[in-house]
Amino acid sequence: MSRSSVQLKTPQGTRDWVGDDLLLREKIFKTTSDVFRRHGGTPLDTPVFEIKEILSEKYGEDSRLMYDLEDQGGELCSLRFDLTVPFARWLAMNGHVTHIKRYQIAKVYRRDQPAIARGRLREFHQCDFDIAGVYDPMVPDAEILCVIVEVFEALELGITIKINHRRILDGLFAVAGVPEEKIRPTSSAVDKLDKMSWDDVKKEMLEKGLSDEVADQVGEYVRRSGNIHDMLEALKSNEKLTANENVSAGIEDMGLLASYLKAFDIVDKVSFDCSLARGLDYYSGLIFEVIMQAPTEPGEPGSRSKTQTSQVGSIAAGGRYDNLVGMYGKRPIPCAGISFGVDRIFTILKPPPEKDSKTSSAVTRNLDVYVMAIGGKEFEGLLLERMAITRQLWKAGIRAEYSAKTKPKSLQQFKEAIGVPLAIILGQDELAAGQVRLKVFKSNTNNEKDLGQLISRDNLVKEVKKLI
Amino acid sequence: MSRSSVQLKTPQGTRDWVGDDLLLREKIFKTTSDVFRRHGGTPLDTPVFEIKEILSEKYGEDSRLMYDLEDQGGELCSLRFDLTVPFARWLAMNGHVTHIKRYQIAKVYRRDQPAIARGRLREFHQCDFDIAGVYDPMVPDAEILCVIVEVFEALELGITIKINHRRILDGLFAVAGVPEEKIRPTSSAVDKLDKMSWDDVKKEMLEKGLSDEVADQVGEYVRRSGNIHDMLEALKSNEKLTANENVSAGIEDMGLLASYLKAFDIVDKVSFDCSLARGLDYYSGLIFEVIMQAPTEPGEPGSRSKTQTSQVGSIAAGGRYDNLVGMYGKRPIPCAGISFGVDRIFTILKPPPEKDSKTSSAVTRNLDVYVMAIGGKEFEGLLLERMAITRQLWKAGIRAEYSAKTKPKSLQQFKEAIGVPLAIILGQDELAAGQVRLKVFKSNTNNEKDLGQLISRDNLVKEVKKLI
Repeated sequence: MSRSSVQLKTPQGTRDWVGDDLLLREKIFKTTSDVFRRHGGTPLDTPVFEIKEILSEKYGEDSRLMYDLEDQGGELCSLRFDLTVPFARWLAMNGHVTHIKRYQIAKVYRRDQPAIARGRLREFHQCDFDIAGVYDPMVPDAEILCVIVEVFEALELGITIKINHRRILDGLFAVAGVPEEKIRPTSSAVDKLDKMSWDDVKKEMLEKGLSDEVADQVGEYVRRSGNIHDMLEALKSNEKLTANENVSAGIEDMGLLASYLKAFDIVDKVSFDCSLARGLDYYSGLIFEVIMQAPTEPGEPGSRSKTQTSQVGSIAAGGRYDNLVGMYGKRPIPCAGISFGVDRIFTILKPPPEKDSKTSSAVTRNLDVYVMAIGGKEFEGLLLERMAITRQLWKAGIRAEYSAKTKPKSLQQFKEAIGVPLAIILGQDELAAGQVRLKVFKSNTNNEKDLGQLISRDNLVKEVKKLI
Repeated sequence: MSRSSVQLKTPQGTRDWVGDDLLLREKIFKTTSDVFRRHGGTPLDTPVFEIKEILSEKYGEDSRLMYDLEDQGGELCSLRFDLTVPFARWLAMNGHVTHIKRYQIAKVYRRDQPAIARGRLREFHQCDFDIAGVYDPMVPDAEILCVIVEVFEALELGITIKINHRRILDGLFAVAGVPEEKIRPTSSAVDKLDKMSWDDVKKEMLEKGLSDEVADQVGEYVRRSGNIHDMLEALKSNEKLTANENVSAGIEDMGLLASYLKAFDIVDKVSFDCSLARGLDYYSGLIFEVIMQAPTEPGEPGSRSKTQTSQVGSIAAGGRYDNLVGMYGKRPIPCAGISFGVDRIFTILKPPPEKDSKTSSAVTRNLDVYVMAIGGKEFEGLLLERMAITRQLWKAGIRAEYSAKTKPKSLQQFKEAIGVPLAIILGQDELAAGQVRLKVFKSNTNNEKDLGQLISRDNLVKEVKKLI
């Protein structure tokens, strides 16, 4: 093995996670999975790669972004692109499962143009909750919206859920005069209305072959949003629209949904937005996307600036996909689900670096106690005693460290204890009398003369536990 | 998108994890990481693939087992093979980190021959804790052995840690007359003594070119194990051995270690085994391997049968590797670490399937309350009321479900409630009076006449919380 001069980096679009960042990420995972479990969710974990054929033809033109494994003999595999298709594959494989609420939190892979500052990476996390099985209409869909509200309640983030229905959208396009084969391209243009002006979206529709008149009619239909009751009233009052089978089926679904959202007391979190289209082909019913709520009053505690919000984009999205599982040639299972963009949520929740802090990228330990020893000239360091006492603390579940030097200097030990709230200080004479000192650090400046109170070595764990 | 007739499976050597299995796995992860954090450990998460060159030349002949990503333009990457090399890469990249205790729990990938029954897969987990930095000799090494003991204490598994020292081993070989270039091959043969007879190991050494005399001398030296004090006495009393520089340096390390293990009160967990060699090239000092302890008395509660133990093999392993980080051309950082075989530990801890259970592969929910409604002929199902009450429970952190049918039958609801300890039962008249019924299920046979006690709807959450 020779020294190498390899460029030291992580692959393009990937990053390392360390220390506090990772602990925050884990907290987000725990908060969301606690909500999922509360709803009867079962965890699922699938391999990071799947047989390539299983993933094929599921992602439309995005398939080119898939990472393939090299053919090293055996099966051809690709890294998973999302968690929905592996879930559908699992359902198709496990015939005995007819109904399930499953959740999965894992990394997915897309060879997209990375934009690290905006939290868009090639290796990123998805956090999915899906309800699979035949149920009465809109009952699972409503529960998923409830899960969304509860997750963001638990994360203490204000949100709005934009909802729409694929059948309403398709019906609106048909009534506006969009030809059948142009419905998906039109849908994809309309979906950009949250980022682009109407003029630009219209331009895209004209380029895609719509007439000026049809484009304007589409614009008139889809540029409407508001609370679900008002929107339903407006749709119902338009006979041209209600005459369309898709629109009227969608209105019926949305009416049921409205009553369920009222029972959950979450109607005010939802905005019916006719321009929401969502990119993926496999959605077949209700679709939704979660955005940060603009702060009600600027500068309110906990509120976020509008700039930050709009930079982040949608922070969760999902919908109903009733036909995906059936594509594997076995029984079809209707499904609906939500995917939380945990990396984006992380970016929002991450505290800004402190201006006067030199440790922004530092690896902070989270300790309860630092065990040290001090003494005079003949001082032998008391390493074995520091070890024995620290082992007592560890055994009791207390987070503790000591200097790894056999004869550490006092100053060095106080320095290493910076940021730790408590110290146990050992001295030869005190130990001989069965005692140690317990010191509470008042601030981050540890180098104090006061060595704390003398306590019996036998009471050590008990005394420390009182303070942490 | 067409129906496909793809073979539905996970790639060779991989598996799905679901439900209780996954919850047990997560419990193992939490138990181990709690211990790591107690020792001041910082979590690290690295990408699932690394630049191929970074992994090259680190794994000797095992490199052929690496999964490569297809060259789709851009960098050549491979799936990570272990967590040690990515950690070394991270250390080499982050010059400001001179000392760290880091842990990482993640999947790694090897195109090995899978043996699923024995828990050996191509995608499997590692769970690593490493201490990096210049410290006084054997202080971090001793702490790692202490971490091992604490992890298995927390998992309630009896273990023995076999230890050895690369310098002692290399010295023994040299004194026995093994030529320099045959030391690693001899080492690899000796390492098999826990699975093969001495005769077979000797045969392998002869095939590798050792003389009969040298092979026998090696056998005499390495086929010794026992407690660390006795073994050290035996080594020290042999002047031929102590004259060797490597052996005497190793003895000095092991003497220090013995005193530290005594301070931690874990000497009885450790067995000094001269035949332990460990495969990886990069180890440079203390090496160790953890095996299940044979039960002290057969049939003792919590004890495992010997058969099971030996099938599982080593359940954790590690050692000191002082030269790996320096291979990246920057400053060297001495390291020592342990890797827990969490999949094997999972296999040991997993409860055997109940004989009379039909749900061995079932997906069990873990719910606190099932919310149901019953009524007479005119009964409308009370879906909105079930939703409103369940939302109250969810908000309070209680795990609850209800039937997703608008008008579910009583029997169906009692069936769905099987395994859930509590039910809230709604009836039209009771609701009108502001009351609901709270039922405690006595066993798994839920279909009882007793509908539980009437409680005020306002006290619902409080009453349920008393019972869970």
